[in-house]
Amino acid sequence: MSEINKERNYTLTSFDKVRIVMVNTTEPGNIGAAARAMKNMMLSELYLVAPSNFPSAVATARASGADDVLSSATVCSSLEEALVGVNLVIGASARQRNIKWRQLDVIETCSEIQSIASKENQKVAVVFGTENSGLTNEELDLCSTLMTIPGNPEYFSLNVASAIQVFAYQNYVSTLEGGFENTPGELANFDDLNSFYKHLEQALEHIDYFDAKKPQSLLMRRLRRLFGRSMPEKEEVAILRGILNKINPYNP
Amino acid sequence: MSEINKERNYTLTSFDKVRIVMVNTTEPGNIGAAARAMKNMMLSELYLVAPSNFPSAVATARASGADDVLSSATVCSSLEEALVGVNLVIGASARQRNIKWRQLDVIETCSEIQSIASKENQKVAVVFGTENSGLTNEELDLCSTLMTIPGNPEYFSLNVASAIQVFAYQNYVSTLEGGFENTPGELANFDDLNSFYKHLEQALEHIDYFDAKKPQSLLMRRLRRLFGRSMPEKEEVAILRGILNKINPYNP
Repeated sequence: MSEINKERNYTLTSFDKVRIVMVNTTEPGNIGAAARAMKNMMLSELYLVAPSNFPSAVATARASGADDVLSSATVCSSLEEALVGVNLVIGASARQRNIKWRQLDVIETCSEIQSIASKENQKVAVVFGTENSGLTNEELDLCSTLMTIPGNPEYFSLNVASAIQVFAYQNYVSTLEGGFENTPGELANFDDLNSFYKHLEQALEHIDYFDAKKPQSLLMRRLRRLFGRSMPEKEEVAILRGILNKINPYNP
Repeated sequence: MSEINKERNYTLTSFDKVRIVMVNTTEPGNIGAAARAMKNMMLSELYLVAPSNFPSAVATARASGADDVLSSATVCSSLEEALVGVNLVIGASARQRNIKWRQLDVIETCSEIQSIASKENQKVAVVFGTENSGLTNEELDLCSTLMTIPGNPEYFSLNVASAIQVFAYQNYVSTLEGGFENTPGELANFDDLNSFYKHLEQALEHIDYFDAKKPQSLLMRRLRRLFGRSMPEKEEVAILRGILNKINPYNP
């Protein structure tokens, strides 16, 4: 199989629909290495949530020729801010958690991304946590899917830029495979879902659903997982909102 | 899908048969990062041909918990020395060359490695050149196959440790045999779901959700599809039933 032929097959635009989000990155070298990893694999949209040190000469040096990715990076103060307008939020995590997230390995994730990105205007964010501890549970709550990278069960400690490299490579390879299925209707975006969850929580408070036995945050997390897994369409979220309005109109 | 199930499928020994060879590496940080990338993907055999600076505190720091890979690394003075006993020598290179090497992309390379490594005593070396210019023609002459990593045709400048990361990941993935199964909690069965939908419909009637504008059966169908897509577990259906009970207890 010829490299050249393969390279002609990618759908250029699908790369523009994938946003890499790095949360609380402490080492500027990792930001630079991530930019380089991204550009090698055709990705360019980098969001940095509260980086410890950016811009930084160390980041620029490590970026090598990918300093354009750094200079066009968007710095945000919160993860929510970095996710505005995104239709599918994927959190990178090595660990299995007790609470059931929808979990896909990186290959499955990338083929799903291809299908999402095949629709005009649909965007995907892949979120990478801080160096030592990864994404917090609160950050994972904002993700509808958890992406795992397979590897050594006895030592799994991928550097964050290496994880981005693996993802970006796999995403590139997945674009070479063609045959994207179209998802049904337009997917709800992060904002739609987030305000649906807020409305849901408010309505459940209104009907006195929460009680002392089970912590509210845990129940909300399970409900987010449940709805997140089905990747609701905009229209479906509107139906759900209509139900909630009957229970309790939303007053944010 | 359970990471654990997948991880049990690799053929342990095949990892021991893959040697990573880094030639004339100038930055010790790259040697450390390579060790970390390798260990994450079950590789442990590292050969260093005339490194500029090794051992080095910088390499050890970047290796994170993979300093065992560094301390067992073999330092050689020539590439020939690093290839003794190897059955297949693969050179990593981004470029197409005029001279016709046998060229495989990284996926094809890894599946070939699996087939070589399945024979007892057969070893493979994957050779990575110096940071700025990669493998020289003389070094490539010692390789029987050239491995390319697909990527951005306009900017291809993978860091050497990143290239090792991509190879090691792809090699790991290639060892995984089939069967990535989803093993969540116990899934709700048809009866659970069916009585949940009946309860849901009754509760929606109770709150006067349905109106003349939209047919009730159509709305129920959309809700079924939405919940059905997420393949709810028994426990999740129980949570949803708890919510419905607060709205309207079920009287079938």
